[in-house]
Amino acid sequence: MKSILLIGQSNMAGRGFLEDVTPIYNEHIHMLRNGRWQMMAEPINVDRHISGVGPAASFAQAWTEDHPGESVGVIPCAEGGSSIDEWAIDGLLTRHAISEAKFAMETSEIVGILWHQGESDSYGGRYKTYEDKLLLLFKHLRKELNAPDIPIMIGELGQYLGESGFGKSAVEYKQINQVLSRVAHTEKNCYFVTSKGLTSNPDGIHIDAVSQRKFGLRYYEAFSKQTHVLDRLEIEDEWVGNLTKRELTKNEQIFVQSTKFALGQLSFEDFSINISTINENK
Amino acid sequence: MKSILLIGQSNMAGRGFLEDVTPIYNEHIHMLRNGRWQMMAEPINVDRHISGVGPAASFAQAWTEDHPGESVGVIPCAEGGSSIDEWAIDGLLTRHAISEAKFAMETSEIVGILWHQGESDSYGGRYKTYEDKLLLLFKHLRKELNAPDIPIMIGELGQYLGESGFGKSAVEYKQINQVLSRVAHTEKNCYFVTSKGLTSNPDGIHIDAVSQRKFGLRYYEAFSKQTHVLDRLEIEDEWVGNLTKRELTKNEQIFVQSTKFALGQLSFEDFSINISTINENK
Repeated sequence: MKSILLIGQSNMAGRGFLEDVTPIYNEHIHMLRNGRWQMMAEPINVDRHISGVGPAASFAQAWTEDHPGESVGVIPCAEGGSSIDEWAIDGLLTRHAISEAKFAMETSEIVGILWHQGESDSYGGRYKTYEDKLLLLFKHLRKELNAPDIPIMIGELGQYLGESGFGKSAVEYKQINQVLSRVAHTEKNCYFVTSKGLTSNPDGIHIDAVSQRKFGLRYYEAFSKQTHVLDRLEIEDEWVGNLTKRELTKNEQIFVQSTKFALGQLSFEDFSINISTINENK
Repeated sequence: MKSILLIGQSNMAGRGFLEDVTPIYNEHIHMLRNGRWQMMAEPINVDRHISGVGPAASFAQAWTEDHPGESVGVIPCAEGGSSIDEWAIDGLLTRHAISEAKFAMETSEIVGILWHQGESDSYGGRYKTYEDKLLLLFKHLRKELNAPDIPIMIGELGQYLGESGFGKSAVEYKQINQVLSRVAHTEKNCYFVTSKGLTSNPDGIHIDAVSQRKFGLRYYEAFSKQTHVLDRLEIEDEWVGNLTKRELTKNEQIFVQSTKFALGQLSFEDFSINISTINENK
């Protein structure tokens, strides 16, 4: 199985409201839990109890559409509110992410890293030293994961920042975005992913759920084509819309019924009937 | 800070319905996330997207009531559906739990282990080899964590098993409970925690939320008094009831408001007003 490492801060972890989008159920997408793989269900990256939709689910969904019959796993290691200094190579977050990645590597091959971080460094001139710190982190990860050429997709900070809510504090987000773009364009196998047109939750800082679906698709475009994604994708609205139309496999239908039952939304009787019905259909 | 390792299968992870109990918000209780500590909110042990209430929150709540001003952290490593063979000392779950524990030990002292497992071994004569496997695991954990005398609290499997729903498959749960009790009574610093009177979700296998609150309190009784808990606690109903009456500190009130806002249940304006009101109150 192939796998993808997710690192950065809250917008990589995901804070989009779960109820705003069609859930993605896909038996070929897995997430790392306790060092092993479970079928993916959002929230994937539970750094906080308020985690929601990030870019990983739609990234993985797009991956599976491109790789029929194959599976992909995501390794959630993003940490809300973390600054680039907290991603120092000897810091807890970095060491923990590498540890998780190594568990994943026992049963998968890591083929890409998704990075989204910088809101916590968008003030006080921190952008001046950001580039060196980011490059050091990437170099360290590639070495530690024994993957010197692994592609790293670098997401742009939301262009809505600096304006409202918690986003107001990110007064230097444009400078950080310049650094992110420069690193993506100069460092080998790094690709930039634009946030053009993405919108935020009412907090003015977190990418909303629908935008995260699009952002994940852009991350996948950068990964699969090994290219910078500098504009919105023509297909993205239609692609997100089509998620509601996707027919679930038998295993996925059972997963949905099991979820409802496990959450107390179905009686055991109704659950049993539904599972029988699914199993009887071919 | 002191910390507690949580291992076992789903009833240690927690599957009680969140909406069935008063949430526990306590700024002195933390949970491990990405190798670091966050203020606790349930679900603590997100091995699955359907995780809910386990014994850890009420255990920790009871701990803080006994240790005013001090903090405790919980390290969630339980894995739903796992059998004792999956907790072999060279298995992924065990190695991952030790890895998580070691991250926690950089910033805390582990003072106890909560164990609840065995439903997945309650058939096919597995109880015959369970004891040796469990003892091997405990010995290994104590060695690896460099904590030779650390108390291990061993919870009894639900006495409702074998009767309905998924619980029907646990036909040999009584034999497993005998082994769990024997280990607790013979191995040093191990304590047995009865499941007497605890009730289940409609699935017949998972301990319900109110029962988990009581179970956590019993685990704490065993831990704090270094004793076997062989009957329900006289105080447990009243204690669970009193959770609704606990007054939240300023930080806890802010945490609750931030949660609501992060989940889209409050406008930024209302959130800001509520935070101002909290900050103005002394």
